[in-house]
Amino acid sequence: MHAVPARTNARVDFYERIGHHDLAPLWDVLRGLVTPEPVTPVVPHLWRYADIRPFILEAGELITAKEAERRVLILENPGLKGKSAITRTLYAGLQLILPGEVAPAHRHTQSALRFVVEGSGAFTAVDGERTVMRPGDFVITPSWTYHDHGNDSDRPMVWLDGLDIPLVQALDVSFAEGYPADQHPVTRAPGDSLARFGSGMVPLDAEPARKTSPVFNYPYARSRDALAALHKGPIDPHRGLALKYVHPHTGDWAMPTIGTFLTLLPTGFVTAPYRSTDATVYAVVEGTGVSTIGGQPFAWGPQDIFVVPSWVDVVHHASDEAVLFGFSDRPVQEALGLWRERRGAA
Amino acid sequence: MHAVPARTNARVDFYERIGHHDLAPLWDVLRGLVTPEPVTPVVPHLWRYADIRPFILEAGELITAKEAERRVLILENPGLKGKSAITRTLYAGLQLILPGEVAPAHRHTQSALRFVVEGSGAFTAVDGERTVMRPGDFVITPSWTYHDHGNDSDRPMVWLDGLDIPLVQALDVSFAEGYPADQHPVTRAPGDSLARFGSGMVPLDAEPARKTSPVFNYPYARSRDALAALHKGPIDPHRGLALKYVHPHTGDWAMPTIGTFLTLLPTGFVTAPYRSTDATVYAVVEGTGVSTIGGQPFAWGPQDIFVVPSWVDVVHHASDEAVLFGFSDRPVQEALGLWRERRGAA
Amino acid sequence: MHAVPARTNARVDFYERIGHHDLAPLWDVLRGLVTPEPVTPVVPHLWRYADIRPFILEAGELITAKEAERRVLILENPGLKGKSAITRTLYAGLQLILPGEVAPAHRHTQSALRFVVEGSGAFTAVDGERTVMRPGDFVITPSWTYHDHGNDSDRPMVWLDGLDIPLVQALDVSFAEGYPADQHPVTRAPGDSLARFGSGMVPLDAEPARKTSPVFNYPYARSRDALAALHKGPIDPHRGLALKYVHPHTGDWAMPTIGTFLTLLPTGFVTAPYRSTDATVYAVVEGTGVSTIGGQPFAWGPQDIFVVPSWVDVVHHASDEAVLFGFSDRPVQEALGLWRERRGAA
Amino acid sequence: MHAVPARTNARVDFYERIGHHDLAPLWDVLRGLVTPEPVTPVVPHLWRYADIRPFILEAGELITAKEAERRVLILENPGLKGKSAITRTLYAGLQLILPGEVAPAHRHTQSALRFVVEGSGAFTAVDGERTVMRPGDFVITPSWTYHDHGNDSDRPMVWLDGLDIPLVQALDVSFAEGYPADQHPVTRAPGDSLARFGSGMVPLDAEPARKTSPVFNYPYARSRDALAALHKGPIDPHRGLALKYVHPHTGDWAMPTIGTFLTLLPTGFVTAPYRSTDATVYAVVEGTGVSTIGGQPFAWGPQDIFVVPSWVDVVHHASDEAVLFGFSDRPVQEALGLWRERRGAA
Repeated sequence: MHAVPARTNARVDFYERIGHHDLAPLWDVLRGLVTPEPVTPVVPHLWRYADIRPFILEAGELITAKEAERRVLILENPGLKGKSAITRTLYAGLQLILPGEVAPAHRHTQSALRFVVEGSGAFTAVDGERTVMRPGDFVITPSWTYHDHGNDSDRPMVWLDGLDIPLVQALDVSFAEGYPADQHPVTRAPGDSLARFGSGMVPLDAEPARKTSPVFNYPYARSRDALAALHKGPIDPHRGLALKYVHPHTGDWAMPTIGTFLTLLPTGFVTAPYRSTDATVYAVVEGTGVSTIGGQPFAWGPQDIFVVPSWVDVVHHASDEAVLFGFSDRPVQEALGLWRERRGAA
Repeated sequence: MHAVPARTNARVDFYERIGHHDLAPLWDVLRGLVTPEPVTPVVPHLWRYADIRPFILEAGELITAKEAERRVLILENPGLKGKSAITRTLYAGLQLILPGEVAPAHRHTQSALRFVVEGSGAFTAVDGERTVMRPGDFVITPSWTYHDHGNDSDRPMVWLDGLDIPLVQALDVSFAEGYPADQHPVTRAPGDSLARFGSGMVPLDAEPARKTSPVFNYPYARSRDALAALHKGPIDPHRGLALKYVHPHTGDWAMPTIGTFLTLLPTGFVTAPYRSTDATVYAVVEGTGVSTIGGQPFAWGPQDIFVVPSWVDVVHHASDEAVLFGFSDRPVQEALGLWRERRGAA
Repeated sequence: MHAVPARTNARVDFYERIGHHDLAPLWDVLRGLVTPEPVTPVVPHLWRYADIRPFILEAGELITAKEAERRVLILENPGLKGKSAITRTLYAGLQLILPGEVAPAHRHTQSALRFVVEGSGAFTAVDGERTVMRPGDFVITPSWTYHDHGNDSDRPMVWLDGLDIPLVQALDVSFAEGYPADQHPVTRAPGDSLARFGSGMVPLDAEPARKTSPVFNYPYARSRDALAALHKGPIDPHRGLALKYVHPHTGDWAMPTIGTFLTLLPTGFVTAPYRSTDATVYAVVEGTGVSTIGGQPFAWGPQDIFVVPSWVDVVHHASDEAVLFGFSDRPVQEALGLWRERRGAA
Repeated sequence: MHAVPARTNARVDFYERIGHHDLAPLWDVLRGLVTPEPVTPVVPHLWRYADIRPFILEAGELITAKEAERRVLILENPGLKGKSAITRTLYAGLQLILPGEVAPAHRHTQSALRFVVEGSGAFTAVDGERTVMRPGDFVITPSWTYHDHGNDSDRPMVWLDGLDIPLVQALDVSFAEGYPADQHPVTRAPGDSLARFGSGMVPLDAEPARKTSPVFNYPYARSRDALAALHKGPIDPHRGLALKYVHPHTGDWAMPTIGTFLTLLPTGFVTAPYRSTDATVYAVVEGTGVSTIGGQPFAWGPQDIFVVPSWVDVVHHASDEAVLFGFSDRPVQEALGLWRERRGAA
């Protein structure tokens, strides 16, 4: 499109006058609103777990889980300072639960995912079912379901939280409420949701589906085995071996606002350049490597977390066999017909 | 509705005359066409495996798998003599493959399911993937996919075939063709489809779904574990613990024309009366019991097969913990908005 | 596939013995069950309205609409004698309502369409709304809705009925019941359903859709205008200008079991050979022409009705601008993934 | 939820230190992020057309349509100064085209609607079809389709533009490009899309649907007639008689990101209190009245435009029969399972 029309005196005077009537000239701002390609404040960034772990533990001394309600250090994108966001639509943080602690029950319209980074054996209770969390497990808290967390193990536990907080904010649809007690009553056996919906089967007369998967925990043991089995077959040059978590009732993404997937990169594998419009957060589960994002290299190992902005080329190089967990707002973009990708250099 | 109008002489004469013009009076047949409730020729029936097994083995001496193309004894409903059907829309048979034999590759619009009854280790090859079949496994041959069967084990193998042959016939849509060789080339590792689609995940950039599940084998080990886990929770008084097999891309039935499910009945459990419009074939996997169908009792044990007609009350009584595999045309009736059930006596 | 295996004495003896156990050899019947292409008893046929109109009027003297419940002459396919069917899954008939008569209220699982052939001004009442029927109007009676017909005009009225009777029979799902009175109460204004759903809009907070369109009458005036407007654009060489009636809530076929469409053929237009698996009934609305079905020519004019079997080539030649209404079970075949077409000669 | 934890010196020091590592304490901001109810900067506001019309015409003297690319005065929400937005996700503006002018062809991922406010006879060309715009017509420019505007009439024309610019910005998915010429070639007759998809019918072998309706113009004449016909029936006490524009292929909203509807309020009608999470823009087509939004009254007449924020009660009072056109991001919220409404006071 063309250049911004000249700001003549007559025009500037006009802009000033109409401003008092809550009007503004589109032609003066059009090129910043409707850009030829995405123009984002989000920057690539990596948080080394070794660097930030001391702060997480220090937080454990500064405040209790109960006082904090959720004791989380937000991973704030350097391009979005003060906005509590890792991308334009997503929030990410690292949550600490110490042995014996409880993060009290509440619910909100924001959807949440948990991905265990350190420790094992704490639980998340959702909809009356407690699920024990182990490293690599992908755990879901659907929108508007009561949930609380606890740690009955004898070691601190840390997990990655991913939520759609900025998106819900942009839509002006935040609702939240606490639960009268710290913990919501347990009404179902652990593993019930996985047994009911996680074996390629669902109850014969299943109730109508909600938009979030009824499976609360996709165990890493099973996901990892699937990746290993696929390792015998062909591999996508741009994305590696990648499986997305799906809703057993619909085959759609497991969550309506956050798309989640697990990727295996074989030892020595280098992906071909790839970009897409969904800014993506990666958590390293296994292996080491280097991801070059918009030309800038980021070396990573287990427990590290990094973010790739919208429409920036990324190349992953795995030094040894690596597994990455990723999440983005791709389901939102797909639902609205707006998602794009580009495979290979321009 | 009312009675059939009197067949006066004038009318009978009229019926005769218009018959020559390919016309017929609706009012003379209306009550037989549009009935207050389903009126079916299908009758309840049970095939005891012990009774028919000798015939199956005898067939193995009379004809080879290759000459027969498929060496199957059809389970023909006594109410549908000569129609090669177990219900109005479904066909069922028992197929025998002897060690070293091959049932040659072909494809057809008819969809098929296999449910292993005796033996272990034979394979079905579908779409270039060989899947080894074990007792209780539910195996799918989707419409219009090349498939062949073989037996590399050292024992005979028998499985239940379920196909939508009468339905395809009623729709006049049968297509079939042989493959130039006995076996279709193997292009994918065994277990590939299960790894790719069977862990609550699907490939990140999965191709558009076809109407039949891409998982060719739902292993019994996994299904049975799921039933055992659910056994801790509530149980449907009319149907027991029942899980249906689903398509991982859509959450719908695994096959578009045949609905399949697995039911656990605890020891001593007696279901409350139940009827539905989808005539259902049951294969007993574990346990013994008695099913009363339309007032008529049928005692069953492992490997037996029985059929419940449309809109006839059924009550199952499990003497010891039982697992039944069932299939019917419920997906068809649901897709067309025609399926009904009644829970409890009239 | 191969030939039928030889019926040796040993085999015939075996077939006889297993027959007593409700078993039959698949290999002896396989080639008749799973055919390379559809093998149908349905034959092409045309009913000239001029020939059968006298019989329709004679029926008006032999029986009242009330005694008959529905005074209809069935158009019985010559290949399906005694089966009350025009194709394997569909029923068609011509219904007569004389001035002042009522066809009493009832409901059934079978879905019905009405397409007015002669007369104007009678009504069909569905779900409490009376819709006045004019030539070329496409009127729907959804499954399990009370409906009655009446004729407040001063002339006989004849319309084509299309129902899924044979399909419902094949699925064993027929339910029906009468209404205590001749007419169901009228609760909505005429045209209400068309206003509510027929203008590219639906009520803001519309209830969940049922599988049949909530529009009961698609008026010919509007459909004909649409065809005329399209006449300026390109035309499908195999099918002419064809629009299908759709469900405003889903964009799917207007009825779940019967697909309906309207085709315009310009003066002198000859379609290229075409075949599909859905046997199709055509009613001529305007114009004259000749359709060659499986090599056999059928000349037609307004009010005539003809049927094209599954998988038989058809070529239409319009002598002057013609409009044909068509219906088939294509929605069923599509829902099950079984529908096929072939454009052009083999 | 609880209060914000005390900002002790130790904590503030900690917050400062972790800030250097792109970390932030969730507990310090949680209550502002996850609010009990939507907390929005958007305020209710009304633009009187009589007040702003002179500025629109003055813009016509200050800049040409071609230099401006689009000569539009943005309706900027007083709570979102400098953000070119009328709600958090939507943009609205009034566009002027003078006789003989052209707004040159371009395309962008942002979807647009046009709703004619003054004048008649200008055209919008979309996908090679020119549609003439009349007052009350609802016209669509789907995402990523080339479009240009022109005015062959002899009078200025003004219409309301509604776009999803802020939403596309929040998702970082803006793409745009100009067309080499001022106008995209015309390849289809005017009215083609309406004829093809707007009569309760769609082409028999219609291509797969895109997410935006293939109908580019929903004419007011037809929509108004539908409202008039419904006027005989019951009326929603909270919303009046309201019809939403739908996609003929899917029955879904006509656009994936912007929901549009038309409401009739009878003379003297006062709606019961209503609120929903989708902030809504209203354009008055006919009639006068007062809308009380969050307790604040706004008097309106034809051509006026006003906005209702998320989760604020609104009551409409029509002095005489009124028709309002409305649009919001409800399709987005529904697709994500986030939309809520409340009928009646708290």
